[in-house]
Amino acid sequence: MTAVPAPITDGRALVDRAMRDTADRLDPLTRRVVAYHLGWTDADGRPAEAGGKALRPALALLSARAAGTPYETALPGAVAVEFVHAFSLLHDDLMDGDRTRRHRPAAWTVFGPSAAILGGDALLTLAANLLLDEHTRGAHWAARALTAATQRLIAGQALDLGFEQRDHVTLDECLAMAADKTGALLACACSIGAMLGEGPARLVTALTGFGSELGLAFQLVDDLLGVWGSPGTTGKPVLSDLRARKKSLPVVYALNAGTAESERLAELYADPGTPSEETLREMARLVEAAGGRDWAAAEADRRIASAERYLDESGMDHHIAAEFRDIALFVTARDH
Amino acid sequence: MTAVPAPITDGRALVDRAMRDTADRLDPLTRRVVAYHLGWTDADGRPAEAGGKALRPALALLSARAAGTPYETALPGAVAVEFVHAFSLLHDDLMDGDRTRRHRPAAWTVFGPSAAILGGDALLTLAANLLLDEHTRGAHWAARALTAATQRLIAGQALDLGFEQRDHVTLDECLAMAADKTGALLACACSIGAMLGEGPARLVTALTGFGSELGLAFQLVDDLLGVWGSPGTTGKPVLSDLRARKKSLPVVYALNAGTAESERLAELYADPGTPSEETLREMARLVEAAGGRDWAAAEADRRIASAERYLDESGMDHHIAAEFRDIALFVTARDH
Repeated sequence: MTAVPAPITDGRALVDRAMRDTADRLDPLTRRVVAYHLGWTDADGRPAEAGGKALRPALALLSARAAGTPYETALPGAVAVEFVHAFSLLHDDLMDGDRTRRHRPAAWTVFGPSAAILGGDALLTLAANLLLDEHTRGAHWAARALTAATQRLIAGQALDLGFEQRDHVTLDECLAMAADKTGALLACACSIGAMLGEGPARLVTALTGFGSELGLAFQLVDDLLGVWGSPGTTGKPVLSDLRARKKSLPVVYALNAGTAESERLAELYADPGTPSEETLREMARLVEAAGGRDWAAAEADRRIASAERYLDESGMDHHIAAEFRDIALFVTARDH
Repeated sequence: MTAVPAPITDGRALVDRAMRDTADRLDPLTRRVVAYHLGWTDADGRPAEAGGKALRPALALLSARAAGTPYETALPGAVAVEFVHAFSLLHDDLMDGDRTRRHRPAAWTVFGPSAAILGGDALLTLAANLLLDEHTRGAHWAARALTAATQRLIAGQALDLGFEQRDHVTLDECLAMAADKTGALLACACSIGAMLGEGPARLVTALTGFGSELGLAFQLVDDLLGVWGSPGTTGKPVLSDLRARKKSLPVVYALNAGTAESERLAELYADPGTPSEETLREMARLVEAAGGRDWAAAEADRRIASAERYLDESGMDHHIAAEFRDIALFVTARDH
């Protein structure tokens, strides 16, 4: 297990405080859902410690450092990207029917679908509102970029839902979906601090490219964990993506590989019944035999290498570039 | 039936064009849901003419005229308020289980809950993104006001959902809920054009006050229609609010009136079974006998009078003030 890089742990307390302060702007009912979803409370509203690793806020603060921007200027950006991320998880769990999130019951199973919808709506709105608190050019830039990234995130989720109703999805379609669903917000997280600090366009562009590639790598690793990850690490049941017949990246690669295993996998994916544990294990073997596992791991490495080239082009301080690199390696080394 | 005031019909084509152009920024799947929900297409994607009256865009454009702002500057504001309104209807219909919207099946019944959630998310995000297209102080002001109004709208819906699970709701709580759920966005619609044009703070404040009171009046009339409106006008089944046991303003007034009818009404509202048509008619009689109908009508008139005082204080041109007044009277004269 790779150690958590310093930038992720360093700003953690600062971001946590800012997130809680911002959430206090919510009405009491919505705040309850949000506090549970973000891991601050249990289902009865008692204090809990079940938060995520806050990767996006760490990247946002690091991007501020890359632009020589003080933490305080970037903090609303760090909170806003995490709120948009939390919004998407809250709504996605409901849409996908996922009942578990970070080893706990998903918020919609605790508070009901309506509360989950409203909680997500509130997080999305609060993220944009928070960024607009300051009347600076940087705030305007950041808010525009965040809402544009959110549009792509929503488009990606719409595509993903559409995939489930289609027999055939190409690898290019699946990569484009992942770029929208995961890449766009991560690209925004990696550059929003620099935008808030009105950093040079060259730096913002390079950081956006870095984040976009990192997002793809992240999704590839997440998809690998969705088939071969251990429930202890992922917080999801074993083979969960296959059980839900998700058209994730390694699966779509395997389906399109043109091998005998691809055909057999396509048959199993087309069967509308609930697959047995044995069938699930067969599916996993087929994805692997058709090359889906190796391809996804290699593609993640290629994306990380491409992300690193963006760092080289950014003109940023070497120490900060090294911290971005550490996060990228950490993210793609998650237990596989 | 009062004639539709000129400001509502005048800008209609302009706003319609701008809304369609803006919706083209959406991904194809989400755009389909949005186009149906906004009345541009039928369930199969064929052109239709089933749009609403676009009250909020008309108010937004009128507020621009009050500030001497050109239409083009205010148009994104007109589109953005209508998109936020459409977002709220899309999500609310799903949350409330309302199956009919403007004489047609509600979008969630046609495309499914997930598509309705995503469609609403997309409209909400697009509204903010659109306002930020221009890098002006006015755009920043408008985007901040719109996201703040949206937060109140969400808080109002959260309160409203909470009311349904409570035995007792006070009239003040219900008025505060309506101020959030309906007043905040209408207040923003009535002032956003002036904000985009960077009009004087005194004008924006007066228009916000006008819209806030108009919103309350609008909600009171809507609640009256929810009990005594004809389905032909409202597009909803007769007595629909009573069937759903909504704690609407006239009902909450009646429940709190301390009369014998209040007690009987409370008993009927507490019964978890499906009320018969006869029971629904009894409920309507009880709300009326306890004074709920008269109070709501009088309160709507008081709110309109208060709204008109804001116009007097605004310092705006008399002709434009008269147009705001016409809209206010039109809105509160809807078939009761």
